[in-house]
This record gives sequence, structure tokens and C-alpha cells, in this order.
Amino acid sequence: MDLGITEKVRPLIAQVREMVETDIAPLDAEFHAEVGKHPSGDRFKHTDRQLEILDGLKALARERGLWNFWLTGSDRGYGLSTVEYAYLAEEMGKVGIAAEVFNCSAPDTGNMEVLERYGTQAHKDRWLGRLLAGEIRSSYVMTEPDTASSDAAQLRFEARREGGGWVLNGEKWWISGAGDPRCGLYIVMACSDPDAPKHQRHTMFALDPDTPGIEVLRPMQVFGQDDAPHGHMHLRFTDVRIGADAVVLGEGRGFEVAQGRLGPGRIHHCMRAIGQAEKALSMMCMRGLDREAFGKPLVELGANYDIIANARMEIEMARLLCLKAAWMMDTAGVRAAQPWISKIKVVAPLMAGRVIDEAIQMHGAAGISQEYDLAHMWTHVRTLRFADGPDAVHRRQVARAELRKYADG
Amino acid sequence: MDLGITEKVRPLIAQVREMVETDIAPLDAEFHAEVGKHPSGDRFKHTDRQLEILDGLKALARERGLWNFWLTGSDRGYGLSTVEYAYLAEEMGKVGIAAEVFNCSAPDTGNMEVLERYGTQAHKDRWLGRLLAGEIRSSYVMTEPDTASSDAAQLRFEARREGGGWVLNGEKWWISGAGDPRCGLYIVMACSDPDAPKHQRHTMFALDPDTPGIEVLRPMQVFGQDDAPHGHMHLRFTDVRIGADAVVLGEGRGFEVAQGRLGPGRIHHCMRAIGQAEKALSMMCMRGLDREAFGKPLVELGANYDIIANARMEIEMARLLCLKAAWMMDTAGVRAAQPWISKIKVVAPLMAGRVIDEAIQMHGAAGISQEYDLAHMWTHVRTLRFADGPDAVHRRQVARAELRKYADG
Amino acid sequence: MDLGITEKVRPLIAQVREMVETDIAPLDAEFHAEVGKHPSGDRFKHTDRQLEILDGLKALARERGLWNFWLTGSDRGYGLSTVEYAYLAEEMGKVGIAAEVFNCSAPDTGNMEVLERYGTQAHKDRWLGRLLAGEIRSSYVMTEPDTASSDAAQLRFEARREGGGWVLNGEKWWISGAGDPRCGLYIVMACSDPDAPKHQRHTMFALDPDTPGIEVLRPMQVFGQDDAPHGHMHLRFTDVRIGADAVVLGEGRGFEVAQGRLGPGRIHHCMRAIGQAEKALSMMCMRGLDREAFGKPLVELGANYDIIANARMEIEMARLLCLKAAWMMDTAGVRAAQPWISKIKVVAPLMAGRVIDEAIQMHGAAGISQEYDLAHMWTHVRTLRFADGPDAVHRRQVARAELRKYADG
Amino acid sequence: MDLGITEKVRPLIAQVREMVETDIAPLDAEFHAEVGKHPSGDRFKHTDRQLEILDGLKALARERGLWNFWLTGSDRGYGLSTVEYAYLAEEMGKVGIAAEVFNCSAPDTGNMEVLERYGTQAHKDRWLGRLLAGEIRSSYVMTEPDTASSDAAQLRFEARREGGGWVLNGEKWWISGAGDPRCGLYIVMACSDPDAPKHQRHTMFALDPDTPGIEVLRPMQVFGQDDAPHGHMHLRFTDVRIGADAVVLGEGRGFEVAQGRLGPGRIHHCMRAIGQAEKALSMMCMRGLDREAFGKPLVELGANYDIIANARMEIEMARLLCLKAAWMMDTAGVRAAQPWISKIKVVAPLMAGRVIDEAIQMHGAAGISQEYDLAHMWTHVRTLRFADGPDAVHRRQVARAELRKYADG
Repeated sequence: MDLGITEKVRPLIAQVREMVETDIAPLDAEFHAEVGKHPSGDRFKHTDRQLEILDGLKALARERGLWNFWLTGSDRGYGLSTVEYAYLAEEMGKVGIAAEVFNCSAPDTGNMEVLERYGTQAHKDRWLGRLLAGEIRSSYVMTEPDTASSDAAQLRFEARREGGGWVLNGEKWWISGAGDPRCGLYIVMACSDPDAPKHQRHTMFALDPDTPGIEVLRPMQVFGQDDAPHGHMHLRFTDVRIGADAVVLGEGRGFEVAQGRLGPGRIHHCMRAIGQAEKALSMMCMRGLDREAFGKPLVELGANYDIIANARMEIEMARLLCLKAAWMMDTAGVRAAQPWISKIKVVAPLMAGRVIDEAIQMHGAAGISQEYDLAHMWTHVRTLRFADGPDAVHRRQVARAELRKYADG
Repeated sequence: MDLGITEKVRPLIAQVREMVETDIAPLDAEFHAEVGKHPSGDRFKHTDRQLEILDGLKALARERGLWNFWLTGSDRGYGLSTVEYAYLAEEMGKVGIAAEVFNCSAPDTGNMEVLERYGTQAHKDRWLGRLLAGEIRSSYVMTEPDTASSDAAQLRFEARREGGGWVLNGEKWWISGAGDPRCGLYIVMACSDPDAPKHQRHTMFALDPDTPGIEVLRPMQVFGQDDAPHGHMHLRFTDVRIGADAVVLGEGRGFEVAQGRLGPGRIHHCMRAIGQAEKALSMMCMRGLDREAFGKPLVELGANYDIIANARMEIEMARLLCLKAAWMMDTAGVRAAQPWISKIKVVAPLMAGRVIDEAIQMHGAAGISQEYDLAHMWTHVRTLRFADGPDAVHRRQVARAELRKYADG
Repeated sequence: MDLGITEKVRPLIAQVREMVETDIAPLDAEFHAEVGKHPSGDRFKHTDRQLEILDGLKALARERGLWNFWLTGSDRGYGLSTVEYAYLAEEMGKVGIAAEVFNCSAPDTGNMEVLERYGTQAHKDRWLGRLLAGEIRSSYVMTEPDTASSDAAQLRFEARREGGGWVLNGEKWWISGAGDPRCGLYIVMACSDPDAPKHQRHTMFALDPDTPGIEVLRPMQVFGQDDAPHGHMHLRFTDVRIGADAVVLGEGRGFEVAQGRLGPGRIHHCMRAIGQAEKALSMMCMRGLDREAFGKPLVELGANYDIIANARMEIEMARLLCLKAAWMMDTAGVRAAQPWISKIKVVAPLMAGRVIDEAIQMHGAAGISQEYDLAHMWTHVRTLRFADGPDAVHRRQVARAELRKYADG
Repeated sequence: MDLGITEKVRPLIAQVREMVETDIAPLDAEFHAEVGKHPSGDRFKHTDRQLEILDGLKALARERGLWNFWLTGSDRGYGLSTVEYAYLAEEMGKVGIAAEVFNCSAPDTGNMEVLERYGTQAHKDRWLGRLLAGEIRSSYVMTEPDTASSDAAQLRFEARREGGGWVLNGEKWWISGAGDPRCGLYIVMACSDPDAPKHQRHTMFALDPDTPGIEVLRPMQVFGQDDAPHGHMHLRFTDVRIGADAVVLGEGRGFEVAQGRLGPGRIHHCMRAIGQAEKALSMMCMRGLDREAFGKPLVELGANYDIIANARMEIEMARLLCLKAAWMMDTAGVRAAQPWISKIKVVAPLMAGRVIDEAIQMHGAAGISQEYDLAHMWTHVRTLRFADGPDAVHRRQVARAELRKYADG
């Protein structure tokens, strides 16, 4: 069970870290400062400078061959293992736009996997190449306003057969990336047969965001932020007509696609969260050494040594658990890895939240302000406790896997 | 030690609760939806509708005699005890603009107390009446960007004697309410003699926000929000000249004023936080009963019964502790109440944060969105862990008070 | 809601505290050192010195009129309120044998209440007077080895009608006090009709421990301790024949008796736990001030200030909650007080466990040794998390009470 | 960084597990039931049956070649890595006498390492062979009653040069294994020069427990248990004369020996604690599936799924961290591994304590009784929070290691 940094990935980590710190971090701040400055006043349009920043950095990454690392176990690109990629994801987690710069960002990676694994040749021709090249982006259209996503079998956004094709009707929300004008693909989960057995009710479709009948109702806010221009949009589909060729994998097989999609993405999220925790711990130490009160550096006051030690211990344990989940994915497949992924999905965001919270506290009021990334990191990792399933559902999975060991006992 | 609801305050609680729920809550949402819609595009100007909402509600509150409850132990107004007022503050905490509607909001209540207790007759004539009437608002100008506020003796914003008056220079930030165009008073703490003994270095001044030389550099953001039009402003003072009559209480007595100011305000903050926790628990229960997954209401799934029970137990304990601190204030004075105020300052915001966090989790992604108040409540109570002193400083006070019991042992 | 120390109870607290510290504490140590020294080798027989200690202290308490305080709301004795008594229970919690010295110890107080409220005149004549006089002790015989006590309706120890009387068969365990040779009364809950509705299946009986057919199988150990000579015994009843007059309150009304019995006892347990937490905090402070490492008193190292502050805050909150539960009992009756009693039953032992745990840690290895009471206090408060219902059941009660508020909503 | 089960150790794990479950566990119960039954009444003498049990099992282990696994990185025996051994230690942790059966128990392993690494040939001849053969046992004599062991430089048990040898005077306590009649070696740390620099004040000595002048004052109790016949003894040395050849490594080099000794032992302790946590989780699941209340198995009630899931997640993380510490020891040496060992020393016992606590709660009162091992496991892992340094000291080490990264920044 080798969870370490291999010789293959060691230089890549160094290159990615260097590029994140030197090239991306300064422009990330500028990118975010540009939000809302499009002449039209539309926050969901990039300014010219934003596109220049993104395109410039992406070109640089491609030029340096730092691209599409997430294509694990593949003979294209690096063919890294999930464990190896995990170390890179951690680095990318430290700066907001970094994952996109390396073409490794959600929800694109998951969507590309869907196309690669389950898409038709036509799907691949139309979308996969451009996604791999970073020319377009994409959204995964699953969550619905009136349904607890934890019980996905309840999802009722409707796909009705009509003529040789399908008609889609209903609302979806929290559709991340659907605010981005570059979004060129929706992968939509719809209920095609409410009377079928629980896991055969849904079908997955690939379609163009410009298909007539799709409206963006509003951006959802994340603790008051709209995350423009990426956005998490509330969409309404009204009689959206698509062809039979939009079906991915097969009618009634939406669950199968969804399951296959979620494993790696959750590991990536968790490793990026660990990257954020590392960054927060580093900021906490530096602040605590630099800032003084009562004639001493803050680190020497109160419980700060213990707080730093606990953060270090928690980070190490969560990272090792993520690496083990990645190793399970690599060696035993997504199904066997499932309870391990559930574990890290609970553990990593909670841990990162605690560490960032303490880093905020060490910074005083500055910690919640625009002066530091901490405020955004804190609210962001909080959202991970719902994304791809709430903690409660994952804990339930872990408990059930545990109890199954005694089923015959 | 009567911590209960007295006959005197019982009808007031009912009236305040009724007005908060019926009159204020719906307009609060509208008030916040108006932010940023001033024709000038300036978020720190009220729209006509915002003023109409505020003025209308305040007129209604005055008309009903629900006004200035915070004037405890006074023969003006109700003359409520702090314990009695605490129950009202809890109700006001449940909706954003409610405290202002009853003229009970921070930082005005603290500033009015400063003027009342320590101000000259001229100060009172100029500002106190208008504050009590809710005609103007005010700011308390203490925090500095380069100094850990936990050690207030370090504050170095300069007050230099010149001619018969004073010249102020330096930066202050997190000046809450300084964004509001109605702000008519600054109470400013400045270092008037850096070489004096630790608690005699500072002097408190009362001055007009329009005094030449004061610039608003920027609004500070709280988890990405500017809280316009109230705001938490970053100010720069450049050679701001004020008369000798601006001094409050006396040269070198700034600490004394600051200490006297902080007790009641912290109790109010904590009781409002408890109001928010109650609201969150209520939302959690209603959501958990209404929403279904896996064929059951959410409350019956996972650990939700325990989560609800823990929230209820934590709220009750924190409330009782706040009431005891209020009772100490009423019966033993602000000095004796100090360790009790430190206790609740640590306990109440942490507790409210946990309860709101669980309420969010019960709501799923909706819980962090604009659909509910929970997201704003969560970030708001987080800020209370710095406001008026970080948790670490208060814990230190509590421990020192404890250990003093053994000093002669 | 007066939760304070009344003028009536203030001098009693002082007298009890004084007697606990001066008279009882030194002899408590000696009492426990005598365990197992009876010439017969029987740990469940008192040595002469043990009886001398107990009888001497009890005589002293009676002489001073410090006796039977628990008789709340009664016109006999002091007629203290539950709130008033709570403060005394806290003091008695600080030393092992103190509660017995004042004739205020479990399970006698609960059993006396049963006799007083539900017993026949014959029961009172036979047992109540001697219990009130501290001449005999008693046991409450409820828990069974093969049944989860959390669901008391499952209890199946059998009471079969035969002739004009009853025959009892089955096993009971954790029968506290049944090891004590002075135990003169068993109050036994038995299943008299397994087919009756859930809460009418059981009947309560009062009987003599010497009734033929009762065997003590073994003492149950509490973390390896047998708590001799009091003990928590495992009993077997084989065809134990008792008369119809042994029935308390009425056939099938065992649940009613059990419910009525439990309220006050749980408050007493919790207040004694708070007394133990206070004692532990005091020991923690003294140790931390006296002991040095790295050239400083321990309190100044690491997170110790925070640990002390947290302990103080937790104790205050738990005490206020207990007092509120007591006040509910006094003013609204046992039924309305029920959810409050459930709250403290969860909160107080957990809190005391944490505080004692930290006190142990401050003492190093000495803290778990015979040098200090901490080891015994720590294991003792742990047992309270089952006694009179496990935490899980009480949390469930609290949650259900909370959710009932929304039942019609 | 291979943290997995190697091909080499896989069959050994199976054999050890099998022998622990089949051969050792049943006799472990019998062994402990025999304590105190020696005809002399001396709890610190083995009964014949106890020796028969131990000797029989040890013979069996030797016969099967399951012996001295702890000799890591050695060309004698298996030459397992620390990572490999860790998996075996976990298995041995599940039953009390198992570690001794495989000659892998504390404090012998640490003492053998001391002799092996730092002892003279004469020391080895006299003691090492017999220890490796399991013929004698040994004690490590370090802790003192009046000194906080966290600051070992304070230890003041005196070694005075006299003639060509040394005279030892002072008290030591918590000397584990010194109750065992088979104890044939004391390794004693003594202050040989109180005026020397901090880490050169102490010298380590190897001597015979029968050396005149050594008294056993009493057994220290661990939560009321004396752990006879092993015991944790309080010793007094009065003018104990030993030769110059008793010195280990060299005068003033006691700290060096102590440091070298502690690394592996702490890893073993932690892995055994993880074994106990695994056992507790297993017991929790089985009990929760078997026992019913309110018509359902306990696992389906309350928060039990979450409790089980949390236990599983915590165990996995702690185990991975221990394995990483072991891997650091294997690949980078004891000095570099030090902060990793500090991490697990904090993490593993706390985690095991929480898991065992929940297992107890699932068992109800039975969980704290002699019916199950849980009570003993719970108090035992609590002691690990002092053994080899209290948590606070280890947290401090971790924080200092973290902050050193920024020392030049």
C-alpha cells in the first residue's frame, strides 16, 4: 500500500506548486477583483482581462505539459495513479482558479469521465475533445429544489418520450458552472420512468446549454456570494426537446452513470480541501509568529501551541485517509473504494473547516475580511458538507459497510 | 437570583415578538433586497424605500412605546433590569433590523451610555437627545489595522495636543455603522501619551464624522459581505483637528470609558445570538418534520433526534448563563459581572454557531443560500468571536478570576 | 424563577459544607481503607470501625439537625424546595459517604418517597420510620440482566399470583445497596401480566430482603470495583412467596410508581455530580499552581488557562440547568419537569466527566491513583450515564418534547 | 511509503490473530480470575495455575516461532520492519496477556533495546539472553513521586559516587512490572550531577532488583486496580550500593538512553491501543445487532449508525498515522520520527478512549462490569495519556516542530 510520493509525480508536484505560487496566485486575486466589471454590468460575463488571465495561464500550463493530470489510469497524458494525482490536487486546492488552469477542475473532470466511459462516439466528437483542450466548460445538472438529494431516487425532473426523442421539463438548481458563458455542455439527470424500480427510474442526457426552453432563473448564493462568473445557477426547463442520441449509456441507467462519476471527484474535492487546510495552518503559524500581544508573539499565548499541534495532527490523518481511499480506487475499483470515499467525504471538509476556523481566529477580524483568503475558504469547505451527498448519508454508508461484516455472524 | 420573566416584562416580550414577526420580518427581507439599488449605485446610500421601511417601523415602535428598552436601571423609559431587557434582546436578535427599529442596536446603545455616563453637558445636548430619538446613528472608533485589539494598550492611533485642541492621525478599521449616511457621531479612542502607564495612555473623543481630514478608505468585508449601508469601514484620519471639548471624561481616561462601555453591550450581543439559535432550532425542527427522504421525515433519520436534543440543551444552558451575567450586572455592578460577561462572550456565540450549523445541515444546500437567513446568521455569529475581544482573551479572564480564589492558599 | 440561595438555605449550606470538610472527609478516607478488613474476610460486612464512623457521623448530623433535607415540599423537617435542596446535594456530592451521613443518599431517598406517596400504612409502619431515622437502608430492585433497561416495558422478572399472594421468579442485577447488611427493604418491580398494555404490565412490591428464595449471586463490578459493602448485587429470586399486602399502589401500576420515583433522584444525582466537578476544578487549580515544570507552575503551561476557563463555564451552565429543572419540579410538578430532568441527566454527568478528566490530567499519574479521589470520581460519574436511563433515551425525550411544539404546525 | 501488509508479515498476522483468539483469550480470563488466589494471600505472587498458563502459552508461541517480533531491523529473528511489527502489535493489543506470550511486552522490549544498543557485554551476558528467552522480566525505573515527569530534567533520585561505585537514594513510583516475582532487572535513571547541563545530569544504571536497600512500599492503583501480579510499584532506595559496571552507556548520558528507548515503545503502545479500539468497535456492532429495545436492534436507534461510522473513521485515521510514524522510524530514524511519535501518542489513546466509551454505552451497565473487557480497556487507555509523557508535552513537541519550519522565514 504505497501512499507516498512516487518518483514519477515528485517533479510534477514541484512544478505545480511553483506555478501555483508564482504564476497563478497573484493573478487569482486580480481575476476575482475583476468580477462584476464587465461593461454590461453582467457579473456572469468575463471581462477581457479575466479571459486574458485564464487563457494565458492555461496556455502556460499546456506549454509546460501540466495538463489533464486527472486522467488517471489512462495511457493518454501522464497516466498517473489516483494516489499520485491526489498530491497534485492538494496543491491545486490552495488557489481558487488553479484547478481550472491545469484543466483539472470540477465539474469538468467528472463530466469528461462520463463522456469517456459512457458517452457515444458522437458525444465524444462533439464535446470531449474540446473539454480536454480546455476550450469549453460544462455543468452537471442533477440537484432539484424540492427534493432531498440525499435520496436521489426521489429526483423527479421529467424526461418524457415524444416522437423519436425526449422532452425535458422541470427545475434544477445549484448547477455549478452554468453561469459561465463558456459552458458548452450540460449532463442532465432526469426521471424517465417514475414507476420503474428505484435505480432504473432515471436517464442521463448530454445536451447543449443553448437548447431552446432552458432559462437561467437566478444564481444561487453561497453564504451571500454568487461565485460569478462560474455561478451555481437555478435553471428552468420548459418543453426542452432533444434527440434520442442525447441519452448517455442507456435509458434507465442514469444511476449507474451517476455512481461511476462520483468516486474520483470526491477524492479530488477532499484533497483540495486538505490543500486549503495546509494553507490555513501555514497562515496561522506565520500570523502567530509575526503578531504580538502582551509583549509576546501570539503563538506563545493561550492554547495556541495546542491549536497548531491539533491542526497538524488532524491534517496528517485526513490526508492519509484520502490517500488510502485513492489507493483503494486504484487497486480495487470504485465499488470497493466506496466506503473509503464516504469516510473522507465526511472527514476532510470537517477537518479543513476546523483548521481554517482556527486560522481565522488567529488573524482576528482581518481573518474574515477581504485581506485574506480565509473567509472564502471557510465558507467554501462548508459547502462540501453537502456537495456530492451530505455527511449524514456518508456516515450511514460507512456504518452499513461496517455492520455488513457481522451479517452472517 | 430571579432569572425569570417578570410581570413587568412579560407583556413587552409578547409585544416585541409580535411586532418582530408580523411587522418587521417581512420588511427586513425587502430592506435587504434594496441594498445597492440607490440610483447613484452607491451601496452605502439608502434607497427611498429603505428609509421608508426604517422610519415607518421606528415610528410604529415609538407609537407603541416599544423604544429604548436598553436604558436599564434608569428612571427614564421602562427602567427595566438587565435581566428583563435580556429577554427582549433575544427576541430582537431573530431579525436583522429589529434592534434598530426599537432603538436598541449596537453600537448606538453603548455610545449613548458613554455620553450619558461620561459625556459633558455639551456632548449630551449635541448628540444624546437625537440618538435617543433615533434621528441619528453613531460609531465607536477603536480597532486599528496593525494592532492586536486583544491587547488594547497597544493601540497607537495618535492624538497630539496642538493649540488648545487636539490633532488626530492614523487609521482605524472595522468601524461599524460608519457607512450609514445617518451616522452623526464618532466616539474615538486615541493614544494621547504613549509613555504614560499602560491604562492611562489613551483618551476618548466625541466628534462629528464630517470633521475635515477623515476619509473612508473602503468597506471591510465580512465573509465577502459589506453589510451596506451600515458597513464596517476602514477610515483614515489625517490631521483631524478637534477642540479640547471633544474629550470624554478626561485626558488619559480612555480605558476607563472603554471598560464601562463594554459590559452591557456584550450581554446584548449574546442574548441576540441566543435569539438566533432559537430561530435556527425552530427552523431545523420544521424542516426536519416537513422534508422527507427514504420515506421518512428527516428528523427520524440518522442522528437528528440527538442533534435537536443537543441544540435544545445547549441553548438553555447558554441562556441561563447570560441571564446570570445580566443579574450580576444588575445586582453587583459591571466590575463584579466582568468574569460572567467573559463567560457568556465565549459560550453564546460558539453555541449559536453550532446550532445554526446543524440547522444549515438539515436544510441541505438551501441552508447556505439566499432562501433562508441561516447563511447570514452563521457568518454573523462567527464575527462575534472577535467583536469586543476574542475568545482567547475572555477565557484568560475567566481562568484568572478562577485562580485568584487560590491566591492566598 | 428564583434559582438563588435563599436566606433559609444559606446557613444550612454553610453547616453542611463545614461538616463535610471537617468531620466527614477525613473519616471517609478511613472508612474506605477499612473495606475488606472484616475478620470474616467478607467485604460485604462492615468492620466495627466502619459502623462506628457511620453511626458517629449520623448521630452528629442528627444532633445538629442536618437530616433528611431531601424531604422537599413537606411540612416535616425543613420543607426545603427542590432548588434549595439542590445546593445541599451539591455539597454532599463532594465526599463519598456524606449523603448517607445526612440521611440523603440514594436509593433510600427515592424508596422513602415511594413509601410516603404510594405505600400502605402497613408499609409505612414497617419501613418508613426506620428509614427516616437512618436505622436501616434499602434497595430498588429493577434492572435485569437480559433486558435493555432503556425500554422498561420489556422487563420480565415474573410475579405470579398464587393463593392470595404472589410468587416472584427471575434475576435482577445492579441492585445498589443490596450488599449492605443493614439493607432492610427491597422495592421490586415485576412483570405481573405480560399481556397487558405496555404500561400496565408491571407491579411494584415492597418486601424484606430476608424473604426465603432470594440469593445474592455476586457483586457486580464497576470498573473493577465492587463498592463494598454497599455493593451492586446480582440477585436470583426462586419461588419467593409474598403476601398480597406487598403490592405498592396497585397491581399493574408499577410504571406509575417508577415514574414518580425518578424525578427528584435524578436531580440529586446531577447536583452531586456538579459537586464533584467543583471539587475536581478546585483540585486542578491547586495542583496547577503548586506543581512546576520547565520553571513555571503548570497552570501557565500549554492550554491550562483555557482548560480551567472551560471547566468553570461548563460547571456554571450545568448547575443553572439543574437548578432550573429543580425549579420546574417545585413549581410545575414532576411531569412538566420531565424534559428538564432529561436534559440535566445528559448534561451533568458528561460535564463532570470532562472536568474530572482534565483534573486527572493536571495531576499526572497521581490523578489515577489511590492518592486522590479523582480516579473514583471519574469512574463514578461515568456510571451515571446509564443509571436511571442511558443518555440516548434522555436525548430522545428532549427531542420529542421539542418536536411536539410543532405537532399542530 | 508502503504502509500496507507485506507478504512477509501477512501469514504472521494470521497466526498471531488465530493464537490470540483461540489459545490466549480463554486463558487470559482464567489468568485474571486467579489473581489473589495464591495460598499466601499475596496478590503479587503467581498461583501455580497462572504460571502454568503463562509458561504453556509462551512455550507454544516459541514452538510456533511466534516470538520476539519486536526485534525490528535486526538480522536475528524475523527482522521485521516497524511497520510490519505494528500490525502484529495491534493484534496483541486485543487480549491482556497476549503481548507477554509472544515476548513482546512492555517494559521488556524497551529494556532489551537498551541493553542491546547501550549495554556492556557483561550486561548482555547477564540479562539480555534471559529476557530474549522470556525467562525473566524487567522494569524501567524512572518516574518519581515529587517531580512532574513531563520535565524529566527535574528528576532528582540521587546517584552518588562512592568508592569505585555508586550509591542510590530516593523514591520511584509507577514502576510497572516490579510486582512480578520474575522481574530480574531494573534499569534505573538517577541524577548523578544536579549541577551539570540539563541533559547531562542523569545516568542510567542496570541492576538486580534484589540489591540490598530496595523496598517495595506499595502497589500504585490504577483506577482502584493494582494490576497484580505485574503491578506498578512505589519503591524506596536507601543507600543502594552498586558497582561502576552498572552504568549504561556512560555517566551523564541517561537522557540519551531514555530518548533512544522511547520511540519504538510508544509506537507499540499506540498500535495495541488501536487493537483495543478495533475490538471495542466489533463488540459495539455485535451488541447493537443482538440487543433490542423498542422493537428494534439497538443499532437502528438514536445516533448509533453515526457513532459506529465515526468510530470506524477515527480508527482508520489513527492507524494510518501510527503506520506512518513506524515508517518514519524505519526509514528516517528515531530522531526524525520523533514528532510523528508525539502525534500518535496524543491521537491513538484519545481515539481508543472515545471508541471504547461508546462501546460501553452500547452495552449499558454490563459494559462497565466484569462481564466484558471494556471497563478495563477504558481505564487502561486512559493511563496511556500519561505513560511516556502526557499529551500536553507531546502536543508541545508537535507545535514546536511545526513552527520551526518558519524559523528562518
